[in-house]
Amino acid sequence: MKTPLDAFIAEDLSGYIEFMPEVEAEAEIIVKEDGVIAGVSEATSIFEYFNVEVEPLFEDGDLIRRGDLILRAMGDGRGILKAERLSLNFLGRMSGIATLTFAFVERAGSVRIAGTRKTTPGFRAFEKRAIILGGGDPHRFNLADMLMIKENHIALVGLEQAIKLAKGVSFTKKVEVEVSNVEDATLAAELGADIIMFDNMTPGQIEVAVKSLQARGLRDRVLLEASGGITLENVNEYAQSGIDIISVGAITHHAVWLDFSLRIV
Amino acid sequence: MKTPLDAFIAEDLSGYIEFMPEVEAEAEIIVKEDGVIAGVSEATSIFEYFNVEVEPLFEDGDLIRRGDLILRAMGDGRGILKAERLSLNFLGRMSGIATLTFAFVERAGSVRIAGTRKTTPGFRAFEKRAIILGGGDPHRFNLADMLMIKENHIALVGLEQAIKLAKGVSFTKKVEVEVSNVEDATLAAELGADIIMFDNMTPGQIEVAVKSLQARGLRDRVLLEASGGITLENVNEYAQSGIDIISVGAITHHAVWLDFSLRIV
Amino acid sequence: MKTPLDAFIAEDLSGYIEFMPEVEAEAEIIVKEDGVIAGVSEATSIFEYFNVEVEPLFEDGDLIRRGDLILRAMGDGRGILKAERLSLNFLGRMSGIATLTFAFVERAGSVRIAGTRKTTPGFRAFEKRAIILGGGDPHRFNLADMLMIKENHIALVGLEQAIKLAKGVSFTKKVEVEVSNVEDATLAAELGADIIMFDNMTPGQIEVAVKSLQARGLRDRVLLEASGGITLENVNEYAQSGIDIISVGAITHHAVWLDFSLRIV
Amino acid sequence: MKTPLDAFIAEDLSGYIEFMPEVEAEAEIIVKEDGVIAGVSEATSIFEYFNVEVEPLFEDGDLIRRGDLILRAMGDGRGILKAERLSLNFLGRMSGIATLTFAFVERAGSVRIAGTRKTTPGFRAFEKRAIILGGGDPHRFNLADMLMIKENHIALVGLEQAIKLAKGVSFTKKVEVEVSNVEDATLAAELGADIIMFDNMTPGQIEVAVKSLQARGLRDRVLLEASGGITLENVNEYAQSGIDIISVGAITHHAVWLDFSLRIV
Amino acid sequence: MKTPLDAFIAEDLSGYIEFMPEVEAEAEIIVKEDGVIAGVSEATSIFEYFNVEVEPLFEDGDLIRRGDLILRAMGDGRGILKAERLSLNFLGRMSGIATLTFAFVERAGSVRIAGTRKTTPGFRAFEKRAIILGGGDPHRFNLADMLMIKENHIALVGLEQAIKLAKGVSFTKKVEVEVSNVEDATLAAELGADIIMFDNMTPGQIEVAVKSLQARGLRDRVLLEASGGITLENVNEYAQSGIDIISVGAITHHAVWLDFSLRIV
Amino acid sequence: MKTPLDAFIAEDLSGYIEFMPEVEAEAEIIVKEDGVIAGVSEATSIFEYFNVEVEPLFEDGDLIRRGDLILRAMGDGRGILKAERLSLNFLGRMSGIATLTFAFVERAGSVRIAGTRKTTPGFRAFEKRAIILGGGDPHRFNLADMLMIKENHIALVGLEQAIKLAKGVSFTKKVEVEVSNVEDATLAAELGADIIMFDNMTPGQIEVAVKSLQARGLRDRVLLEASGGITLENVNEYAQSGIDIISVGAITHHAVWLDFSLRIV
Repeated sequence: MKTPLDAFIAEDLSGYIEFMPEVEAEAEIIVKEDGVIAGVSEATSIFEYFNVEVEPLFEDGDLIRRGDLILRAMGDGRGILKAERLSLNFLGRMSGIATLTFAFVERAGSVRIAGTRKTTPGFRAFEKRAIILGGGDPHRFNLADMLMIKENHIALVGLEQAIKLAKGVSFTKKVEVEVSNVEDATLAAELGADIIMFDNMTPGQIEVAVKSLQARGLRDRVLLEASGGITLENVNEYAQSGIDIISVGAITHHAVWLDFSLRIV
Repeated sequence: MKTPLDAFIAEDLSGYIEFMPEVEAEAEIIVKEDGVIAGVSEATSIFEYFNVEVEPLFEDGDLIRRGDLILRAMGDGRGILKAERLSLNFLGRMSGIATLTFAFVERAGSVRIAGTRKTTPGFRAFEKRAIILGGGDPHRFNLADMLMIKENHIALVGLEQAIKLAKGVSFTKKVEVEVSNVEDATLAAELGADIIMFDNMTPGQIEVAVKSLQARGLRDRVLLEASGGITLENVNEYAQSGIDIISVGAITHHAVWLDFSLRIV
Repeated sequence: MKTPLDAFIAEDLSGYIEFMPEVEAEAEIIVKEDGVIAGVSEATSIFEYFNVEVEPLFEDGDLIRRGDLILRAMGDGRGILKAERLSLNFLGRMSGIATLTFAFVERAGSVRIAGTRKTTPGFRAFEKRAIILGGGDPHRFNLADMLMIKENHIALVGLEQAIKLAKGVSFTKKVEVEVSNVEDATLAAELGADIIMFDNMTPGQIEVAVKSLQARGLRDRVLLEASGGITLENVNEYAQSGIDIISVGAITHHAVWLDFSLRIV
Repeated sequence: MKTPLDAFIAEDLSGYIEFMPEVEAEAEIIVKEDGVIAGVSEATSIFEYFNVEVEPLFEDGDLIRRGDLILRAMGDGRGILKAERLSLNFLGRMSGIATLTFAFVERAGSVRIAGTRKTTPGFRAFEKRAIILGGGDPHRFNLADMLMIKENHIALVGLEQAIKLAKGVSFTKKVEVEVSNVEDATLAAELGADIIMFDNMTPGQIEVAVKSLQARGLRDRVLLEASGGITLENVNEYAQSGIDIISVGAITHHAVWLDFSLRIV
Repeated sequence: MKTPLDAFIAEDLSGYIEFMPEVEAEAEIIVKEDGVIAGVSEATSIFEYFNVEVEPLFEDGDLIRRGDLILRAMGDGRGILKAERLSLNFLGRMSGIATLTFAFVERAGSVRIAGTRKTTPGFRAFEKRAIILGGGDPHRFNLADMLMIKENHIALVGLEQAIKLAKGVSFTKKVEVEVSNVEDATLAAELGADIIMFDNMTPGQIEVAVKSLQARGLRDRVLLEASGGITLENVNEYAQSGIDIISVGAITHHAVWLDFSLRIV
Repeated sequence: MKTPLDAFIAEDLSGYIEFMPEVEAEAEIIVKEDGVIAGVSEATSIFEYFNVEVEPLFEDGDLIRRGDLILRAMGDGRGILKAERLSLNFLGRMSGIATLTFAFVERAGSVRIAGTRKTTPGFRAFEKRAIILGGGDPHRFNLADMLMIKENHIALVGLEQAIKLAKGVSFTKKVEVEVSNVEDATLAAELGADIIMFDNMTPGQIEVAVKSLQARGLRDRVLLEASGGITLENVNEYAQSGIDIISVGAITHHAVWLDFSLRIV
């Protein structure tokens, strides 16, 4: 995964650190909460950018516990200070997402947990990677990744026309359709949609829709996804409604940071 | 505030929207929770980038209530669809921060609430702006903004040397020192620090330190800031300890999004 | 489609044109061969970049005949001279590809003609667009667009492992497998590949493979693509072998320019 | 020659290759047609970008024969797969141009074969380099490289004014004038043009013009160039008409790729 | 200090050097005038960019004398020729500024000499660094560095309102006010300005103003700066008027280059 | 001439101006010294970037006198303040160069005054434009602009080999050779150099060399340039030594700014 590191570093220009004398130092990053770690490879790149040697003690995706020593950094103290805040920001944000994703994954059994495009502008690539590290499916990286027909698109050109346009774009792309009732789900499957997303439907409504598709012999042609209003409390119920994937905006927009700190030793 | 809009838009490349026919459409953005709004000017720029006309109904910084109509967009439906997710992501993230900041500001009375550099990499400028819109002080934008001497710097070169180096950089810069006891606070004030930050101290410990500075005639020479472990629950107690500023990492790293949605009308 | 226009224009810095006096002028672009036109919207953007007014007389994708007047440009003569070469280069290269693509499409009947990634470095987006304008399918824009397992990948990790890895990446992506015999085609279809590409096989060999998949009830689960050594002479024979798509590197790497010229009137 | 490698690589983002395990591998690039090779140094840079070790067996500009082993690559198989398509695209396009240029050079004897600005937008630097490797003269890289007065410029301000303006720009620049008859050629030489280009004239017409310049004692003051409608069939005839340079758009816009392939060994 | 080296190098594209054979060479940079050196670290980066080994014999900020050998460069002669002009341009411009700054510093005794924003567009970071190397204070790097209220701002919104706005921006920023009489100086100090700049006042007028501030007990609350019309001839007189800082536009806009040359040995 | 305006503006980020209220204002730029103006078109672009209306009262290249009103700006006062410093920096630097160039041009009669590549890194395009506006010849913009063989190149590969290499690069380029004696001048002319530069020779030595070239019938084949140690005092003497061009590093590296100021009216 390519990191636009220069731009991130430019955001946090160092000040008087430039004028400090060179001092050899060693630092440790410690975590203060349990969770799933993400951002170790990014933090490593940041320290190395400032010519600081790094010894990571966990790999991205590992389970970590309060108090664990995550990473050791050795080199010019000025480099360590320059890398400190940015590397902690990557670890804090990415591990927060990985940890929350993992909590959903544990409750969903064999059904796949996926992200959404509800990500911080400019930081999506890293938030998607954190989802993968937490055991989730990144879903679309951008609008070009898959052809997704949402309620607003259908409002503009109609369901049939939207699917026809989407399928004409390229044989290489899957076409997903967002529906909110059994009729549209059936129509989408008949028109050749690859994936059907049940939007803001209850587990009970979804179960009915799945059975209706089965009855018409359409279930095996499509992947089925639930989305909208899914929480840690109700995700297990959704997981038992007969679908393949659950997408959850909360794993990015309601994730809070995992707490890390750096200390000079 | 200059927006690197092209880069944000590139992150969310449009797909089959390119192949849809032109359809005139109108859309509305609605908020689903109470809060302080931020990101209206960014959302407006995004729609205008796609040649969609926008009529904002609130200004950044306004209080909004569940159900309020925030913004009306009119133009080619394809432009609206391209702008949809990115503008909602700006509104969701920025308003979440503004709303949480405002909650702290209300509890802090005349003491100023400030942010930290614990921000999402690449999105700091917008998170700092959201803090301002919520009534807070942005604090440093980057390491060059002020000369801040933290525990880790003192560990490397010692307090006196660090202050001397910082004051030599430029007369245009304030020098802030992070301390955790009365002795260091006194020493920093005597050496000419402009701001003293009490790091991870209790309101009681801070009160003692402030009185000690007053007793030595040093109180009026410096601004006093508290930081570390401050929450909505204890912020009022800190606000009464005699200080000028309270900085709170949580207003960025524990803010969740405010919920907005766009519908075609 | 977003054009990195500044970079293209920088490549062709104007020289003494800067020192010429302003002269109002009108120019015409004429085509000297029959073909399918592509690049009109790019040429228009280039003239407008130099504040020259443009009146296009054809739309991208139209059939054009030797001698047709394609576009009229009016404004400062210096702007016309600056835009001349770059706009002709876009028209010449893109129309050459669209014209050759169209020749394949005419011979392929209902089977879809697709491009490949054999494109000029830095100019792929425009070459893919020219393929679409000629009636073809762009195929993958980049390696991330679809998960394509080629002979070289199979050599590295084996067919089963490669398909398993590819299907684990994201439910949003199709998985295509390149095969050169009936056994691999069967295996790929059984393992859940979405698309099977017959690589460098004769129409006769492909026909046998298609029938074998039909006999095992696997034909309708997959899209079938032929690739390798396909020319204007043999494309019709391939089109009758029972497949869905034919991908042709020649429509980019053997396309020569269509001939356009600009004259001041 | 500086390569904007990052941009070219970004165009071809890798997909599931990221998720493959590390496997040591070795690959070979083979050529399938006779020709002049170009792009070896670019291909080498691409492999090295992905940390793959490269052993080139030919140097740019060498004659190669069908079946020759061009380059050996050793390292992580994932890096080889990422570099594959882009390096083959450089080799294919650049060697195609070098090979066609060489064919013209062989037929032109001591007269110099030069390119034009009819190049693929964004890829000109590499196409010009391929012309040099095929034995040709790159001609202008951009409009600022030389001051070239074409028919369209003369239509705007007249020949005398155009030459006067051009000669006033800087003593460091040559001034070339495009003419289509003896009178303009004579006038241009008298006004101090450094180079005269005979545009779309027959070898016979050019011969007459050259003799006329000789008769007036103007031949040795100028370089003489022929351009327009020159093919492999007639280039030798042009070469014998008394001129110094022949510029040929076809060496870029009618060059097809030389065929290379990569295989894992 | 981060150097946008690629952009600077792009400005000076090499020409036929590309076509020269590789020749091992050694070069020396000599200075032809006495002065303070600046730009050694930039020159070193430039040579290293072209893979030339460098041995600097002075450090930035050192005093140098006519004839001193500054830097030795060893490697491919083509790389040395490419680096020559750009590295000499850095040394010439930066050392010219450092040398002139130092002349002012010597005459100013314990009063600090500071620069201004009167710098060459695009080259400010290096000119500020040269000021520091000459013993000066860089003053503001950009408009965001400090909140500076100038005559033109006061003309727009009035002094009180301007100070109030400035102090509300962030507690981390100093506020400087430009005044031209005793009354405004007093008012600014009372309203809490951190720094007062006496603009275009004579040493005598400044002395009166300083005494007035002392009489009102306001002197120790503020830093005092003189600016406008200060030259090598009068700087000492200003230095004795009771102020803390003298800012001098001339150290950038009237600095001429120090003379360096490179020779192959 | 294309201005990378965004980068220049980014260098001078505005601070509290963002927080000022909107106030309609009018400003004037006045010059405080006699000279030749340059930078009006750049200053105009900068004001317009901030949506301020501009009325320029002089054109670039005009003679101006102390006290002249150069430009009027009308619009939001905040925009005027943001544009102020950057536009003055362009005017000050560029007019300083144009004015000094013009002083040399006046003393050189019909001999052409040219610049060198001794320019501020990153600002060359504007310094070259200022030379043109002062009546001078820009000389090379970069190393690729002409093929210039200097003492250091000859030291590496010898004069004959250097000229041969240079002439083989492209027929579109002039070849200039730097010499310091009559023999090398003769040899260079015989080998076909287009321009000969007399480097650090006295007017008397140059006169001898010119006569020697005349005696051998080589004078009319080449342009002759003098360079090195030329000042306002001796330029007239050089101008009478029989040469065509005098290049002067001092017009960039010893130019001081012309003094402009902006006031709100």
